[in-house]
Amino acid sequence: MKVQVLSPADAPFERSPGQDADISVANLVDERHGGPVTVGYGRYGPGQALRETMAVDDVMVVLDGALTITSDGTARTATPGDIVHMPKGETVEIRAHDGGALTAYVTWPHWRPAHAAGG
Amino acid sequence: MKVQVLSPADAPFERSPGQDADISVANLVDERHGGPVTVGYGRYGPGQALRETMAVDDVMVVLDGALTITSDGTARTATPGDIVHMPKGETVEIRAHDGGALTAYVTWPHWRPAHAAGG
Repeated sequence: MKVQVLSPADAPFERSPGQDADISVANLVDERHGGPVTVGYGRYGPGQALRETMAVDDVMVVLDGALTITSDGTARTATPGDIVHMPKGETVEIRAHDGGALTAYVTWPHWRPAHAAGG
Repeated sequence: MKVQVLSPADAPFERSPGQDADISVANLVDERHGGPVTVGYGRYGPGQALRETMAVDDVMVVLDGALTITSDGTARTATPGDIVHMPKGETVEIRAHDGGALTAYVTWPHWRPAHAAGG
């Protein structure tokens, strides 16, 4: 696999699986490419939220907007430049503020096969 | 390990090992914490560059400034919001533009032990 420079404009956003909110994800590097990590972008509509128990280690970088991250009863706000690290096995609620949010994410291992397996 | 929200203000920047340029890195999550990925921030002074053969898979998100990424004879510019995926084994030159740059990075596996091993 070669070095790549990826941009949100290249991202094939689709509805995030397993939930009904206005939240989209776009994998740009994943299990189809033979490497160990999945790389992509996430887009959250205003006020949209998801709650998830992590099937993989997921690192999310906030690029635009703001998110409130709630885990273990603690709510923290993440704004552009902040990194949210969500280790496997942790339960987290991610809620976008009124302006929505754009994120970049990296998961190890690949989240899509782990999700399909019910992890 | 718990969910964490990390910020550049929390980052203990230190000179990037093995080179003399004004380039600093700050691991916030790494092999000391027991998880699979390293997470941190990188800071590049104006015009500073490094050339490296990747010992690990490294994903870098540009947060501020601009970088020119050269690999396999192709130069590409990365600006805020862009993701640079540098797979293990690839050789890459990263050069900051005049305003310098701030990045977030995720590596799998941990880069510091791989680097110490000469990888």
